[in-house]
Amino acid sequence: MAGASPAGPELDRLIQLLARLPGLGPRSARRAVLHLIQKRDQLLEPLADALRLVADRVTICSTCGNLDTRDPCSICRDQRRDASVICVVEDVGDLWALERAQATTARYHVLGGVLSPLDGIGPDDLRIGELIERARDPAVSEVIVALNATVEGQTTAHYVTDLLAEANVKVTRLAHGVPVGGELDYLDEGTLAAAIRSRQPF
Amino acid sequence: MAGASPAGPELDRLIQLLARLPGLGPRSARRAVLHLIQKRDQLLEPLADALRLVADRVTICSTCGNLDTRDPCSICRDQRRDASVICVVEDVGDLWALERAQATTARYHVLGGVLSPLDGIGPDDLRIGELIERARDPAVSEVIVALNATVEGQTTAHYVTDLLAEANVKVTRLAHGVPVGGELDYLDEGTLAAAIRSRQPF
Repeated sequence: MAGASPAGPELDRLIQLLARLPGLGPRSARRAVLHLIQKRDQLLEPLADALRLVADRVTICSTCGNLDTRDPCSICRDQRRDASVICVVEDVGDLWALERAQATTARYHVLGGVLSPLDGIGPDDLRIGELIERARDPAVSEVIVALNATVEGQTTAHYVTDLLAEANVKVTRLAHGVPVGGELDYLDEGTLAAAIRSRQPF
Repeated sequence: MAGASPAGPELDRLIQLLARLPGLGPRSARRAVLHLIQKRDQLLEPLADALRLVADRVTICSTCGNLDTRDPCSICRDQRRDASVICVVEDVGDLWALERAQATTARYHVLGGVLSPLDGIGPDDLRIGELIERARDPAVSEVIVALNATVEGQTTAHYVTDLLAEANVKVTRLAHGVPVGGELDYLDEGTLAAAIRSRQPF
């Protein structure tokens, strides 16, 4: 009898690796592998190729921390972007979210995380020094601190803002308020108070 | 501005393919890709290699329908397995489940699905002919129909059992009853009735 691992070493290894992706566990990884093999031409082969391509080509932009096949990345190289504004985000997922929303024409700076003493993540583990360096460039006039409205995000925002005081730039943060489409009855008190405080002329 | 797909073509393609795996969607696929790139050496590279290996090597056993790098598969070639008993399962996931439980020393026959007229899946789409052929072998004395206790599973079980009547074999099915560790209060009436009907001496 094959015992505890009936799938054989190749499939077992694939299942174990897939199970380490966020959102998947051992059971869903097994289902995913069976699905892949059922769709060999449409899914398994293209996925193997796509992963290899990403592993070989995608690199981290040495300027902003974005992911791209070129360094500097396509955003840093895009002359149509506003080089005078830097938008600071926690990770590349947040950068993607802002880009999907076409929310800004600024360039980005990816910190690579937030300060979290409990997890042992201090200022030196983030790309904060590089940010201050970029902000000192006279061409830069504004830094938008677009960090998550969580405790760690806001702690990091305050830390970064303090350091940016020495660079001669305007520092702004995202507005707090009612999400578009949001219902007042479902919002927390902090958001409602902020929305009233920052009320705008109609 | 990069518009709707800020991640670039290589990452976009990987996200799209991962999003087609069961259990993942576009959002979790994006998170998975960022996680992969953060763990390039521990996860991205090994996963790319493991997928390529599976794509190149894993094949379907022409005897039983199991997945393996060899044909016949390691279970069909294992002389310690009982060649006189064939255990019929719906898919390879069910075969793996029975093997993990070390539930049987029988060899397997993977149907590759269940009859489902609504989905256009008829007898010719399943490996039913091959099963009858194997069951006709005089060395085979029993076929265990280990299909799911769902409507489609049981319909298929009846269909297969009828066809097996002409082959000279004993046909058995899995016992219905209280799952080990199960609480009566949470079980459906059908299961409880079956458990009483099939009660055993203590």
